[in-house]
Amino acid sequence: MIETIAYLGPDGTFTQEATQFLFTNPKAELVPYPTIPDVFLSIEQGISDYGVVPVENTIEGSVNVTIDWLIHHVEQPIVGELIYPIKQCLLVHPKHADRPASDFKQVLSHPQAIAQCQMFLHQRFPKAKLVNMDSTAKAAETLSKRIDQPLLAIGPEQAAKKHGLHIMQTDIQDHENNYTRFIVVGKKPVVFSHKELGYKSSIQVTLASDFPGALHQVLAVFAWRKINLTRIESRPTKTGLGNYFFIIDAEISADHVLMKGALAELEALGCSVRLLGSYPCYVKKLSKKVEL
Amino acid sequence: MIETIAYLGPDGTFTQEATQFLFTNPKAELVPYPTIPDVFLSIEQGISDYGVVPVENTIEGSVNVTIDWLIHHVEQPIVGELIYPIKQCLLVHPKHADRPASDFKQVLSHPQAIAQCQMFLHQRFPKAKLVNMDSTAKAAETLSKRIDQPLLAIGPEQAAKKHGLHIMQTDIQDHENNYTRFIVVGKKPVVFSHKELGYKSSIQVTLASDFPGALHQVLAVFAWRKINLTRIESRPTKTGLGNYFFIIDAEISADHVLMKGALAELEALGCSVRLLGSYPCYVKKLSKKVEL
Repeated sequence: MIETIAYLGPDGTFTQEATQFLFTNPKAELVPYPTIPDVFLSIEQGISDYGVVPVENTIEGSVNVTIDWLIHHVEQPIVGELIYPIKQCLLVHPKHADRPASDFKQVLSHPQAIAQCQMFLHQRFPKAKLVNMDSTAKAAETLSKRIDQPLLAIGPEQAAKKHGLHIMQTDIQDHENNYTRFIVVGKKPVVFSHKELGYKSSIQVTLASDFPGALHQVLAVFAWRKINLTRIESRPTKTGLGNYFFIIDAEISADHVLMKGALAELEALGCSVRLLGSYPCYVKKLSKKVEL
Repeated sequence: MIETIAYLGPDGTFTQEATQFLFTNPKAELVPYPTIPDVFLSIEQGISDYGVVPVENTIEGSVNVTIDWLIHHVEQPIVGELIYPIKQCLLVHPKHADRPASDFKQVLSHPQAIAQCQMFLHQRFPKAKLVNMDSTAKAAETLSKRIDQPLLAIGPEQAAKKHGLHIMQTDIQDHENNYTRFIVVGKKPVVFSHKELGYKSSIQVTLASDFPGALHQVLAVFAWRKINLTRIESRPTKTGLGNYFFIIDAEISADHVLMKGALAELEALGCSVRLLGSYPCYVKKLSKKVEL
């Protein structure tokens, strides 16, 4: 059976790399979508079986759009997770590859990629103008077309391959631990050929009422069971400042007796609890130590 | 003595309104800056005495840039807080004020303002193109200049006044509880003429080590003292996914014996704690009930 996988495009981005890493079945059809809501909508409308979108980056933090769509638009949407190392490369058209650094007056990339390489750029190209583009792929494409002048771009290896660019340097990101967490969303479970690292459950918890210690009470339910929480994120409920719900990721399957007990207790305490998914987690290893 | 107050510009935005509400001294000189980092830098460099920037909105959530600058760039920077109601208005050039809704093909505003009025726009102007601008002020300015065609803008009352526009409708935001929390940053305490609602302390806490229940232990320090936490926000430490520090706002002065005890205990538990400020809080009241 042919599976259709929607991912946040365009081609030549880290999301495409991550999607190709996960979905290795040659029969899977990988389709780029222009925005994160478009990926969710294509699943909701039954056009795609699964979708791959970024949810969090070590450096930049949460992708708020993804979190808002997870909460408001699909039932139990998360079916898998991939932690993927972000290796930014400095790209140049082969024609300009041998020029000295001072020849390059402009560096093109997505604002997040530029932000991730700020120190590198400041040291190596202090006078270059940093030009924001819609995506790293768009930056690479521009280099392949405007060969009249020496330009640089920042982007993944994939973008260099796609647009016939030369990689001047790899791993130019300022922080060594630059990972993005991608999630796979879909209406049914998915089986990958990789060996999973573990299982996680993501839940949305709205407090019963606001009193000193309310969140402490919620966390107690997990703490005494020694359930490790890998992430807690507060988001406003849109009903007033100081009213939040929490997205909690726990390193345990939702079927586990301890997790079932924890969720039942939360509801008994009056919290509103929604399971966003219980899913296998994968990591693309680097040769370096992966900090998790 | 003349005080110089930097705020996130341009003129005709909610930040300007909030700044004028707080700094009523006629000798205070209010200066708009183009970006949030520029506001922080002007204080660091001694050019401005205080700065006013948004830190959180009920609907949109945190302003990440402000939080990153609070943490990385100034010592104990927060000296005050203002919770300010966001009342979006539908603006039009007086020349086009009497036209029917179907004449208006474009609505201009900042993406956040458009996001805050999505349902309203969908119902009243389903076919209008929504055009993103750099600020609500820029949208209003454009309307005042391009009078050849019927355009609409979304923005504060202030923007209508400044650019001679007509207010077609007030309070067009979809959610009634639309508030923005502004903070005043500076190197020394500030005295406002308003009556404060209370005191808050903001701290940055980095966990000693990551074990199941680590955050629960941190919150216990506040819970048993019945110190109310109005906000908890996790931000990545940039050293690896799953490593966070927390920004915690507590409804208590840092001088209070209970807060002193709480902070001392956190440090004794091995947490790294940094005080971002202990400051008075103000609210601009609406006629409606203010949900806090």
